[in-house]
This record gives sequence, structure tokens and C-alpha cells, in this order.
Amino acid sequence: MEPNASSYSSRSFVEIAMEVHKVVPPPHISTIHKLKTRLKETFFPDDPLRQFKGQPLAKKWLLGAQYVFPILKWGPSYNLTLFKSDIISGLTIASLAIPQGISYAKLANLPPIVGLYSSFVPPLVYAVLGSSRDLAVGPVSIASLILGSMLREQVSPTKDPVLFLQLAFSSTFFAGLFQASLGFLRLGFIIDFLSKATLIGFMAGAAIIVSLQQLKSLLGITHFTKKMGLVPVMSSVFHNTKEWSWQTILMGFCFLVFLLLTRHVSLRKPRLFWVSAGAPLASVILSTLLVFAFKAQHQGISVIGKLEEGLNPPSWNMLQFHGSYLGLVIKTGLVTGIISLTEGIAVGRTFAALKNYQVDGNKEMIAIGLMNIVGSSTSCYVTTGAFSRSAVNHNAGAKTAVSNIIMAMTVMVTLLFLMPLFQYTPNVVLGAIIVTAVVGLIDLPAAYQIWKIDKYDFIVMLCAFLGVIFISVEEGLAIAVGLCIFKVLLQITRPKTVMLGNMPGTIIYRNLHHYKEAVKIPGFLILSIEAPINFANTTYLNNRISRWIEDYKEEEEEEEEPKKHSGLRFVILDLSAVSAIDTSGVSFVKDLRKALEMKGLEASETEKHHFKYSFLFLVNPIGEVMEKLQRADETCDFMRPDFLFLTVGEAVAFLMSTVKGQLSNHV
Amino acid sequence: MEPNASSYSSRSFVEIAMEVHKVVPPPHISTIHKLKTRLKETFFPDDPLRQFKGQPLAKKWLLGAQYVFPILKWGPSYNLTLFKSDIISGLTIASLAIPQGISYAKLANLPPIVGLYSSFVPPLVYAVLGSSRDLAVGPVSIASLILGSMLREQVSPTKDPVLFLQLAFSSTFFAGLFQASLGFLRLGFIIDFLSKATLIGFMAGAAIIVSLQQLKSLLGITHFTKKMGLVPVMSSVFHNTKEWSWQTILMGFCFLVFLLLTRHVSLRKPRLFWVSAGAPLASVILSTLLVFAFKAQHQGISVIGKLEEGLNPPSWNMLQFHGSYLGLVIKTGLVTGIISLTEGIAVGRTFAALKNYQVDGNKEMIAIGLMNIVGSSTSCYVTTGAFSRSAVNHNAGAKTAVSNIIMAMTVMVTLLFLMPLFQYTPNVVLGAIIVTAVVGLIDLPAAYQIWKIDKYDFIVMLCAFLGVIFISVEEGLAIAVGLCIFKVLLQITRPKTVMLGNMPGTIIYRNLHHYKEAVKIPGFLILSIEAPINFANTTYLNNRISRWIEDYKEEEEEEEEPKKHSGLRFVILDLSAVSAIDTSGVSFVKDLRKALEMKGLEASETEKHHFKYSFLFLVNPIGEVMEKLQRADETCDFMRPDFLFLTVGEAVAFLMSTVKGQLSNHV
Repeated sequence: MEPNASSYSSRSFVEIAMEVHKVVPPPHISTIHKLKTRLKETFFPDDPLRQFKGQPLAKKWLLGAQYVFPILKWGPSYNLTLFKSDIISGLTIASLAIPQGISYAKLANLPPIVGLYSSFVPPLVYAVLGSSRDLAVGPVSIASLILGSMLREQVSPTKDPVLFLQLAFSSTFFAGLFQASLGFLRLGFIIDFLSKATLIGFMAGAAIIVSLQQLKSLLGITHFTKKMGLVPVMSSVFHNTKEWSWQTILMGFCFLVFLLLTRHVSLRKPRLFWVSAGAPLASVILSTLLVFAFKAQHQGISVIGKLEEGLNPPSWNMLQFHGSYLGLVIKTGLVTGIISLTEGIAVGRTFAALKNYQVDGNKEMIAIGLMNIVGSSTSCYVTTGAFSRSAVNHNAGAKTAVSNIIMAMTVMVTLLFLMPLFQYTPNVVLGAIIVTAVVGLIDLPAAYQIWKIDKYDFIVMLCAFLGVIFISVEEGLAIAVGLCIFKVLLQITRPKTVMLGNMPGTIIYRNLHHYKEAVKIPGFLILSIEAPINFANTTYLNNRISRWIEDYKEEEEEEEEPKKHSGLRFVILDLSAVSAIDTSGVSFVKDLRKALEMKGLEASETEKHHFKYSFLFLVNPIGEVMEKLQRADETCDFMRPDFLFLTVGEAVAFLMSTVKGQLSNHV
Repeated sequence: MEPNASSYSSRSFVEIAMEVHKVVPPPHISTIHKLKTRLKETFFPDDPLRQFKGQPLAKKWLLGAQYVFPILKWGPSYNLTLFKSDIISGLTIASLAIPQGISYAKLANLPPIVGLYSSFVPPLVYAVLGSSRDLAVGPVSIASLILGSMLREQVSPTKDPVLFLQLAFSSTFFAGLFQASLGFLRLGFIIDFLSKATLIGFMAGAAIIVSLQQLKSLLGITHFTKKMGLVPVMSSVFHNTKEWSWQTILMGFCFLVFLLLTRHVSLRKPRLFWVSAGAPLASVILSTLLVFAFKAQHQGISVIGKLEEGLNPPSWNMLQFHGSYLGLVIKTGLVTGIISLTEGIAVGRTFAALKNYQVDGNKEMIAIGLMNIVGSSTSCYVTTGAFSRSAVNHNAGAKTAVSNIIMAMTVMVTLLFLMPLFQYTPNVVLGAIIVTAVVGLIDLPAAYQIWKIDKYDFIVMLCAFLGVIFISVEEGLAIAVGLCIFKVLLQITRPKTVMLGNMPGTIIYRNLHHYKEAVKIPGFLILSIEAPINFANTTYLNNRISRWIEDYKEEEEEEEEPKKHSGLRFVILDLSAVSAIDTSGVSFVKDLRKALEMKGLEASETEKHHFKYSFLFLVNPIGEVMEKLQRADETCDFMRPDFLFLTVGEAVAFLMSTVKGQLSNHV
């Protein structure tokens, strides 16, 4: 029923203003029901069982199967048009996947062929289980970096290569297990705690670290530091200047410039996506030919060397579930799992928003987790949806996850037949490819935007960045997450309180400081608390309200014309913005009321006699707050109609009229 | 200026309802000014420098000295009347302090005389520096328990008594350092994170643990477990039944009953406080006489044995700042420091509220910290304001901190002359005294109150209690604090969203579910978000609002009479309860607006053409939120007058009138 304007106009404003609504407690809900609702909101906010409502049983089975294996949903409607688009995009990302796979595996201190293995099996698993149409799956730079660095702290990849490989596969297994568990237990909201600012700072820092590591191959240095931080790397670079090889530097520089140019071209004109997509593979081919032609491997340019051939060997016998390295493996799995999950989910959501379809976060986690679990048994290491590769996939016109299948097939062909071709590929070109790939992770416009909107977020971002560069990747991330949570807790522990005033000519009350036309009402102190009231802030609120009262009294004294009946008589607390209250909060209200009584606000004896219960009044408590006040009522006597009001206007009008009535009785 | 009723009555309600106020950004404040305000609110919420304003320089020096040494404030006005009250209360708490000091020192595995040392120097320090008039300072049960148990994990008090004592003093030093630092750095709000529910559960658990430890002396067992948990203690008790000594049990039982009876009497009639205050000392004297008379120490009752005499020897040479135990000492100091600080501050605040004077939390922390630092150099271990002793002090009529001085003097006399009297005091009586003292820490009525008001708080309390009993004291506390913070984060990550409806006959909009008389407005979906919008909940809010929209459409379909122009046309978000927003929140608003456009709400072509900017409207953003929206305006175009409204009523009225106007143009 629309609010009927005519029914209002017949009543005078005074009548409407004087109307006092009863503030009622919300309808009673049993604790069990509330618990069920809370669990549902926490773990199933997207209500995945919606679609099952009111369907016949056979359809429910079908919907269930389609829910678990999304390929059953889009598979049957697949046609040639889609296939054409997918072939193009599949081949495009394959041309990226091959050089990147080899490069990233070296970044993780693993044999280069493991990178190609990881571009074969995981995309196939994802195509069956995943929900995103644009996600291109494979090894990624940051997870490779973290895996390599964390394992290298305890095991040397050069002295114990077999053990290192075993630990890498075991870490992948645990990463997958952790990711799938998060998805099963619907705990996906945990990755929400990595705020966008944190991620921007973190990824930029990681990009710098990865680039610094490439200085080894770009300069041709043999003796390089094991550490990752900026300072050790730079000192290693400048202490070993005699190891710099001019041939390597020349080749690296040329190819780096070439790759960065092609990237720039594709950024300017997205239609020329194939330029930057094909450039890495072209560089690999070109540089291999150069090295082969000039026999440059004997002239100071290091090459990959002979690689194995063939498809992924099974590796479940390599997984280690016991022994002294179990702690290391679990910790590495956890960190790489969380980072790669965050990237994969963020990429999936970004493209889903662009193309306006839904991606179920928890389901994606299960898909990525299973992908890693299966991969760990087929010689693959940690993989996820990579941002740059998915962007190319998207720009190349991918329509479904079949592009991942096409890519996997191409990689399979490479593994079976084309491996000897990489024998003469120089490491320097792989370094240049990695640097070009991670440069895109440094997002300066976004950082500037954050600086403009929220300085604290900017500081968090800077701390993540500096922590990663100077301390370590894991600790930089932990510091950033800690700062985010601390910010949230700080906002709670120091809530804002504002004084409200009346907007003249209306019954609206707003923040005096914000709206200049609002005016104070003499004798009334109207405060609004803008946060939940809980154990973390009741002490502060007590202090703050005492200060408000003292400030009010001071200002009254400073006024030149002492008015009749002036002085602070009533304190009204607007609880519209108080979203929750706990037992400490209820005590706080009770103690505040008692303290005001004892302070003896400057009411006349008449008023004191009339308002002997309270000089404190509450306005508009929301449902949950109301319930707690009601339950405390037996000891605190909160539910009186002259204590709780629906709006500030009603409270002021009621109190003023009652006081006038009393005074007139006594004149 | 009071809202003038007459100026309203002359205007019709329609005129007033149609008035649309411009939502303005708050006045600009520089970042520096905002940072200063935020720092001030965070660290100086009680504005301690208030009193210094506008005073001549000499007075400022005096006020400053009085601020640092409160004794200079109340000292000069001290008189005989106050002294009379303080003598009585001082002697009363001394009679408690002597037996408790000996008992608690044994609880901490320290020589009994250290407990008396700790009742001599610390109260003197507190009398000079402290602000509370009722706090009675000395060793406390829980801190003694924690100190003893944490140090005993690594060092045996029986085999290495000198080392144990050194570590205890060093821990006391670090505890005091930590406490004073918290006070200096104004980080006092950290202890606010120990919510009342947590503390009740924790103290009850600690009381049980302490009582279980006393079973050793109450039953006369020699071989007792080193562990603290319920299970090890019980198995130790029932495995060593042949060590139970009937004489000890008999004596222990009698005195325990006597002490509990006196405690009960004093609880019923607070005027008989001296009964329970004097009972421990009376028990000590009586039992010493009994043992001496019957030569009971040869009959199975263990006694304290010969104690040293004399005042506190200096112990700064015993403090250890290096070596392998440094980590243990720092950790123990931290935990005991936090716990004793919490108790001391809570006690001080409780009695200050009762007697209506102010206690500066941070200043108290400095006082307690310095007390412990000085104590560690004078053979005292961790002390603080004890709850039971302060209650006795208060009931006995203490007027100032001089009662602490009187107590210290009495203890001094005891140390100098009366120590030989304790030679025959049986340990079982000390155990009975401890049990009686900690029984008061179990607060069942408060626990029941928590159960009634907030079930989650009750679970936190229960976890603290069970954690302390079954795992360990430190870990039980850590679990409870973690649960508190998790609850706060969970509330933020799953904020409440409610649908608002119009209260008929007014322009007030309230929660439909809470106020049964509120009605929906067809074509409008009015939501209120009841929490800050930040990185932790934007994903959830996106899902939730999509669900609200789908639910709305489903309900519309189910209605029997399809109305003309029905269907969801506008989404109004009421931001009154959104206390803060960050960069993720700003992105959320932007993306929501775009998503609504793409969803194509069921507006007619006319409406779509008119509202081509947005189907989303925001109401009443608070100052800080408004600022962030404004700063994002260049890219997002938020500051349009037809996007932001001051109240829900204004938004609805504006939109309805504009639509009607448009439609009438096209009819």
C-alpha cells in the first residue's frame, strides 16, 4: 500500500509529530532457529540449493550431477561455433603455456619438464570440475616462487634433487587438500580477509622479488645468493660483477625489450592480443635457432640442456606423509595453497563479473583443490588460474573451458614429439619471459586510486609491499593480513560518537558537524554511536560520553545570556547505527544510566521527581539489540515506554511536552 | 532554537514530505588533522591534559607533580578522621595479607617468606603512585599459580631453588616492565579485549585449578603430579590413596568448614566483614597452637618449618637478562603481567564506580608496573590489586591508600619479630585458606546472567573455563581471546541486511520483520545494511543482495493479482547503520550499480531512459562514508543529487513523483 499523501495532508504536522510509536521487541525466534539462520548465512550465503526447490527427483539427480561436474551442463550444448573460438584461444594460450611452464618450473627450482607436465593434467581436471569459462590453468609465478624458496630453506635442489622433487609433490598434495577442504567446509570467506589493498601490495612485492631472481640468468651469474630479499640479491649482483657475461646481457636485453614492446602493443590495442601472446614462443624459437646457429652455448650463454620426453609419469609413490620434513611440507602447502587459491578465485570472479555470469567461490575452491591433488600424483606441482594467461584467453575469444583442453592437447604434442627442440634454448630468454610476465602484476593506477580514497589502506598496501621485499614473502603477507584485522579491530574499539541536531523545519536529526544547518536543542544532549557496542569499546564509550557531557556544560557556561531552564537535562542516545550489543554493552547502558543519575544533571526538583528513573533515553534500537535489552529487563528495567523511543524527534517532543506539562502544573 | 511547532502546523504534511534535502559532503578536514584526532581518540580518550588548560605556570608544575604522584594530591588534606578509618582497614587487610602471603608464595613454589616480602614493599610503592583509594595490593592466587606453573615446566623448584628464585624475580621485572610500557604507550585498551565473559570463565577455571593443587596439602600426599590439568591431578590423587593422612584430612576439613562458614556469614551481613577477614589469621594461630601442643608434626601433619627473619634483602643482583632462560622469563613475565594487570585494573574500576570517583587506567598501569619493577629488586614477586582483599579493604572502611601503608607496616613488624611463630603452622591450613580465597572467584550468578543475555558469550566463557581446566592456563586464555576476536570478525564478515517498510501514516521506515505494522512499497526494494562495508564482507553482501532481489521477484510472481506497473523498479540502500567503508566497499557500490543496470530491472522503457544512470540509490551516508564516496566520484559519479538522499522517505517520494511526472508526459 503506497503511503497515501492525501491521508497525511488532512492531519496537521503537529499531530503527526506528536505521535509516539511504541518501540516493540522483535518477534521471538527460538535459539535453534537463529543458529540455523546464522549458520546458513555464514556458510551458504549464495543458497546453492535454491535451484533444487520443487523439482522432480530425476531432475534433482541431474541437477546434482551438473552441480558437481559443470561440464555436464555446458557439454551437451557444445557446437562448432564455440569450438572455433576455443581452438583459437586454446592454441594462443598454449603458445604462452609452453615457455612459461618451463620458466616457472625453473623459478621453483624444479626440472623444467615438470612445468610442462603441470600444463597438461591440471587443465584437463579443471575443464571437468570448474565453473569459470575464462580461467586458463597452469603454473603461476608467485606460487612457483614461494614453493621454491620455502623448500630451499631446508633442502638443496642441486644436492638433493630427488628429495626436493618429492617434497614439491607432497606440498602440492597438501595445498590441494587444504584448498578442497576450504571449499567443502564452505570456509571460503577466509580468503576475503586478503583485502584488495593487501593483494596489490603483495603482488607488486612478489613481482619485484621474482624479477630480482631473474638477474641471475639475465646477467649470466653463476654464484648467486640463496636469499630472496632486495638487499642480499643486490649485493650478490654487484659483488660478482666479474661473472657478468656480455653475450648473455646483450641477448637478454634485446629479447626483454622485444617482449616488453609486444606487451605494450597488446595493451594499447586489445585486438592485437596475439602479438603479446605469441611473442614468448617466438622468442624461444628465435633464440634457440640463434644459439644453435652460432654454437653460442660455448660462448658464455647457458642453455636448458637435454630434457626428457614423454607424458607425465605417475608420482604418487613420491608423496611423503611422514618423516622430518612433514612440517615443512604442510607449511609450504598451506602458504602456496592460500596464495594460488586467492589468485585463482580473484581471476575467476573478475572475468565472471565482466561477462555477467556467476562463479560459485566454494565450488571453484574444490575444483582447484582436486586439480592439485590429482596433479601431485601425476608429476605436477602447484597450479591455479593465472591472471595474465586468463586475460589472453579472454581476449582471444574463449567461450568455454574447452580452450584449456586444447591447450593441454598442444602441450601433450610438445611433450611427446617436440622436446628435443628446447635443448639449445638459452636460460636468459626464459628469464626475460618471466620478467615480462610479472611486470603486469605491478598495478600502479590501482595503487594511486587507493591512496586517494583511503590512506590507511594505502599504508597496509605499502607494508605488504615492503615486507615482501625486505623480509620474506610469507612474513610480508602475514604482516599485511595482521594490519587489516588490526584496522578492523581498531575501528571497533574506538567507535565514532557524534552529536545530533535538528534540521530546522523537519523532524530529522543529523550530525551537527556534518550538516551546518542543523541546530542544537537546549537542555538535550543527543548522541549517536556509530558502531556495535561490545567488550572492546565500552570503557572508551564511558570516557567519551563523560567528556561530551563536560564539554556541553563548559559551552553552556561560556554563553553570554544564561537562558531560563538551561543546563543539560536529558541525554538521548541514538542507537540506529549500533549493529550489535553484547553482555558488556548491556552493562554499559545500565551503568551509564546510573552514572547520570548520580551526576545529577541540572534538572529542577520537579523534573528530578518526575524523571526519577532515568535521565538517559534510547532511540531506535535494532532488532537484535532490542532482544538483549529485553532479556536484561528483569534486572535493568529497560522496557519502559518512556525510556525507548522510535525516533529522536519523538523522544524530544515527548520529553519537552511532559516537562511543560509538569511545570505548568506547578506554576 | 527549539523546533517551533507553530511553524510546522502551518505547512501541510505533503509539503514537508516532499521537501528534499541536499546530501552534502562533510566539511573538509586535512589528513594531518584527522590523524591527530584519531591518535587522540585512540590513545588519550580521557583527555588527561584537560585540567591544565588556562592555568598559570606554577600551578601547571604542581598539577603535573600531582598527576605523577597522586599522593601529593590527597596527602596534604589528610586528617585524623581518615586515619582512624585507615588504621582499622589496614590492620584488617594485614590479618588477611599475612596468611595469604605465605600461602600464595607456596602456590608459586617460592619460599614462604617471599610472600611476606611482597606484602611489604609493593603496597608502599602503590600508595605513592596509585590512584585507587580501595585497592589492596599484594600477591594474588592466579598470578602466583601461573608464575609457578610456567617456570616449573623448565626448572625444578626443589632441585634448583636458587635458579628458580632468580627466574621468578626476573619474570617479575619483565612483567612490571610490560605493564608500565602499556601504560606509557597508552595501549591500555588492549586489556579491553579480555571481555567480561572471558574473564569469568577464565577465573572460574583458574580457581578450580588452584583448588585442585591444594589437594596435595589437604590430603597430605607427598608424591604429586607436576601438571595442572584436572585429569592428571585427579589420577595423582586417586593413585596415591595410601599416602592420605587422616590427621591432615581431619584438621584440613575442620578448618576449611570453619573458614567457609565465616565467609558465608560475612557475605550475608557485610557489616560483619571482620569475621571473614580475621578468620584466616585466627586459623593460623589456632592450628599453630594445636600442632605445638600435640607435637603433631611428628604425627603426619607437615608444617612450614623454620622461616628466615628480617626485611627484604635487595635482589637486583639476581635478575637475569641473558642466558638460555631469557625466553621463558620474558614469556612468563608477559602472561603474568597481563593477567595481574587485568585483575588490578578491573578491581580499581569496580570500586571507583561504586564510590563515584575516576581512575585513570593508563596511570594505574604505570603504578602497578613500577610496583613490580621495584619489587623485583627487593625480593618480591608479581603483585597486584587483589579482588578479595580490596573488597575487605572497602568494607572495612578504607578512605585512602594509607590502609596499604598500615598493612605494610604490620607486615614489617611481623617480618622483624614474629617469624618464629610460624614454625609450627601446618601446611594444610594454608591450603584451606587458599581454597576459601579462590572459591569467591567462581561467579555463578554472573554466568547465569550471561547465559540469559548472549548465548555466544556463554560459549566463549565455557571455552575459557574448559580450556583452563583441561589444557593449561595460558592456552585456555589464548583460546578465549581468540574466540572473542573471531566473534567480532564474524559479525563483520556476515553483516545483517534487513528490508525496510513504511510505517503507515508517517515518513518513518523500519525493519519489516521487526515492526509488524510496516508495509512494503511496491516496485521498491529498500534494504538497510547494519555493519561497516569493507573487504571482509563485500563478497557476501553482493551475494546477499542478489538473493534479496531474486526473492522479491519470486514473491511478486506468487501474488494473485498482478498489479499495474508492478515489478522491481528501484533498489534503495539505507546506509544509516554503515559506520565505515573502505576501498573494497566503494568498489562494491560501483559494481552493484553496474550489475543492477545489466540485470535490467523491470522498468519500462521510459523509466529506463530517464534513469539511465542508476537504479540504485543511497540514503543517509555518514560523514566518513560520504567522504570516501566523494573521493571516488571522479571515476564513479556518485555525487549526483538524484543518487544520494537524506532519508528513505525523501528518496521514495522523489522517485515516485518523478516517475509519475514522466508517465503523465507520455500518456
